[in-house]
Amino acid sequence: MNDLFEIEKIRVQFNETDALGIVWHGNYLKYFEAAREAFGRKYNMGYNTAKKNGFATPIVKSNVEHKLPLYFDEVFSVRAIYIPESAAKLKFRYEIRNEQNQLVCIGQTTQVFTDLSSGELSLVNPEFYDQWKLRYNV
Amino acid sequence: MNDLFEIEKIRVQFNETDALGIVWHGNYLKYFEAAREAFGRKYNMGYNTAKKNGFATPIVKSNVEHKLPLYFDEVFSVRAIYIPESAAKLKFRYEIRNEQNQLVCIGQTTQVFTDLSSGELSLVNPEFYDQWKLRYNV
Amino acid sequence: MNDLFEIEKIRVQFNETDALGIVWHGNYLKYFEAAREAFGRKYNMGYNTAKKNGFATPIVKSNVEHKLPLYFDEVFSVRAIYIPESAAKLKFRYEIRNEQNQLVCIGQTTQVFTDLSSGELSLVNPEFYDQWKLRYNV
Amino acid sequence: MNDLFEIEKIRVQFNETDALGIVWHGNYLKYFEAAREAFGRKYNMGYNTAKKNGFATPIVKSNVEHKLPLYFDEVFSVRAIYIPESAAKLKFRYEIRNEQNQLVCIGQTTQVFTDLSSGELSLVNPEFYDQWKLRYNV
Repeated sequence: MNDLFEIEKIRVQFNETDALGIVWHGNYLKYFEAAREAFGRKYNMGYNTAKKNGFATPIVKSNVEHKLPLYFDEVFSVRAIYIPESAAKLKFRYEIRNEQNQLVCIGQTTQVFTDLSSGELSLVNPEFYDQWKLRYNV
Repeated sequence: MNDLFEIEKIRVQFNETDALGIVWHGNYLKYFEAAREAFGRKYNMGYNTAKKNGFATPIVKSNVEHKLPLYFDEVFSVRAIYIPESAAKLKFRYEIRNEQNQLVCIGQTTQVFTDLSSGELSLVNPEFYDQWKLRYNV
Repeated sequence: MNDLFEIEKIRVQFNETDALGIVWHGNYLKYFEAAREAFGRKYNMGYNTAKKNGFATPIVKSNVEHKLPLYFDEVFSVRAIYIPESAAKLKFRYEIRNEQNQLVCIGQTTQVFTDLSSGELSLVNPEFYDQWKLRYNV
Repeated sequence: MNDLFEIEKIRVQFNETDALGIVWHGNYLKYFEAAREAFGRKYNMGYNTAKKNGFATPIVKSNVEHKLPLYFDEVFSVRAIYIPESAAKLKFRYEIRNEQNQLVCIGQTTQVFTDLSSGELSLVNPEFYDQWKLRYNV
């Protein structure tokens, strides 16, 4: 089994800071999304892949844990690591590290598959996802 | 001719501030939108009205001028005032005042009508908009 | 012991929706913050109270669980409920309900106390927080 | 006199789209800021330069004009071009182009210099800005 992941480098924008002078905590979910979509482009499993196959992949669960703050203009890396699951879910965990390679933030998200037209939840893996899992042996 | 407007009261959220300790300038377009949609509910001319009639009303132009900063937890009012236009456009101007009734910010937005399915720009007023203008004599 | 909570009514803004036509998942942390600060005003234990006492209260942990989507213009309520803790932490859980009183989203946040000037983490309860806990018997 | 500018390449994030399926108009001010700060790093004239010299550079005016929409995952370029001014102001204009090199959006921002500690507006150019103008002959 392979360990699938992708790393995205991001710079803190001024609009992402708050009156405490640090990145507002809710913005880390944007950073997670950027890395998850970078993963999606690398392995062909992002919002657009799902859409082409008639599915949306809404987030149903997320958690974030902050170890250190990020400041304006800092450059950091976000690693999105795919977590294999037997259920019809897309699960990722995330690691954010600053330029000193210190662990800044970790987190996790869970997505489900819903039919793009009916909105209905898919209880089993959509076929394109099963094929993807086979292809990457996860 | 009537002067059509609506006023929305808003409180500055912590996530809207930036590292200078004031509301980040781009967030004022959110405040304008809140007042414009409050206008839309009052006079039945918002995103949802347009949608029900098969149109989107994307913003094609905006400008904002800042007189004073807003700080976390401040309560302010946003007035959205409809500006009549002969062209197929929705135009509003905005006035934001703080609790001391000082003018904090002014601005303006212009929206056009596009067909919801084709995306095509409407060069003449959609019928529902013409009827609305007649009804309110603007 | 009292059960301390506050409820905030919010309307979904257009800018909070995403291309799936629903509220983008990261925006729920803004809704949690709005309710947490409404709690802060009611019980005098928000960002500004901490600041007046020389402390910041950064979020160190958050989780969100989505049961149902929220759409543009929907009005919903966010309940922020204080969770008593022996450690030097501020803990809240949240419940978001739509107008049909359906449970839309639940979540939790944890804040710590850091010295506003040094940035140092407070390992024990700041005095103002101990007094607050006594006052409300939590 | 030189023409000073910098170009920043950006990819549309999912959280920047709205229920119309396009980038929400207010997010373009974030794109402008990203390019303005890239300019700041290139020419040493951004938020951090001002801060080091005891000044903040709040935006007092902005305008945006939209020609074409941007969709999720599109890659585009933002050019920030410095506009020389005799008054104590920082003025930029912006051009956003999509991958087909079509003009998507233009705009302009004006910043003033305020004293970081007193908050007072600087009516004349701060010395560090005068020296910068000399150095770049603008």
